[in-house]
Amino acid sequence: MVRELYHKDLHKLKEEIVSMGSLVGTAIGDSVLSLKNRDAGLAQKVIEMDHDIDALDYSIEDNCMRLLALQQPMARDLRLIISVLKMSIDLERMGDLALEIAVITKITAGSPPIKPLVDIPRMSDICQDMLKNLMNAFENKDIELAKAVAKRDDEIDMLFDQVRRELISYMIEDPKKITGAQHLTFVARYLERIGDHITNLSENVVFMVTGERVELN
Amino acid sequence: MVRELYHKDLHKLKEEIVSMGSLVGTAIGDSVLSLKNRDAGLAQKVIEMDHDIDALDYSIEDNCMRLLALQQPMARDLRLIISVLKMSIDLERMGDLALEIAVITKITAGSPPIKPLVDIPRMSDICQDMLKNLMNAFENKDIELAKAVAKRDDEIDMLFDQVRRELISYMIEDPKKITGAQHLTFVARYLERIGDHITNLSENVVFMVTGERVELN
Repeated sequence: MVRELYHKDLHKLKEEIVSMGSLVGTAIGDSVLSLKNRDAGLAQKVIEMDHDIDALDYSIEDNCMRLLALQQPMARDLRLIISVLKMSIDLERMGDLALEIAVITKITAGSPPIKPLVDIPRMSDICQDMLKNLMNAFENKDIELAKAVAKRDDEIDMLFDQVRRELISYMIEDPKKITGAQHLTFVARYLERIGDHITNLSENVVFMVTGERVELN
Repeated sequence: MVRELYHKDLHKLKEEIVSMGSLVGTAIGDSVLSLKNRDAGLAQKVIEMDHDIDALDYSIEDNCMRLLALQQPMARDLRLIISVLKMSIDLERMGDLALEIAVITKITAGSPPIKPLVDIPRMSDICQDMLKNLMNAFENKDIELAKAVAKRDDEIDMLFDQVRRELISYMIEDPKKITGAQHLTFVARYLERIGDHITNLSENVVFMVTGERVELN
């Protein structure tokens, strides 16, 4: 009976982290969409979404603590609990980065757009795709998929370098664009950080399944 | 006998996290010093230090996992273990940020300096001081000190805003300075992130001592 409850709790934990992943994916997508469409209303929604993400983070941490305290999880289950705990930390930070992008939308929505948004929407698309695949890898304990996801971080890093360089050339051409281009440079940097967090998530999935600690990328 | 070993392991865990805090503090200080003195050799040392920081992080995580698996830590001890685990994650990221600053030193050491380094050295001094006090708060379970440390993050945020604005004005004055000033803007941003991580550490100390989850700042 207690054992049954325990497995139910573990199952709930997995569901919560998957929900958190999906919510963070939406926050990332909407934050960049709000920037692209200069949509302060959508940006505000992303900012409010962060409360839901934080609430899930707290709930996951509470559940991990409870499972660790009340049960004595061994090997595989312990790895699952610790992995979920660590994943929730990365996801929470990714939510914060989406929030920071939304704040930049609100700051810049009034000033003339720097067009095009260079490859920032593409960076966002890749991040969302990586995150979706990673959560699938988590659910299916698919370490090959987790590794493939981490590999794509190279694309993000390359795009970040390219975006940064393009924005510098805008600034040099027209000093009036410096402030705006700098905001965009930060957005690109936040997406690059999101890519790093997804790599951390991938490493955690590998650890959860195999017990091995690997450095992916 | 087992109990004795257990307490020895907990004690070792505390020592390790304190060592990690001290190493990360050195990495932060040296990274900004290397930037200030255009000292690529010191920057290289910071980059190598990151291996030691990562090694400590792994060791701490292993020890946490072992304690959770072999013992059945309750309430206070469980909170200590989870807090140390989470603190090691923040410290590891802070080490990464110091490494990124050292990389910027290596990239920029050949080009003409943007002088002055504005308030970047001051941001670094405050971060180091905050970290030192926070580790004291951890060792002495001093939640008032932990809260006071987190409060100082406002100073860091204010300095970041100021540095960013000053650097923008340099860029507008002289477009040749754009690339260099942008590197410095990132350095300031990394220090601002380090301040955020120290706030996380403070929240963890409060959680460890009281079991309460608080948002400081």
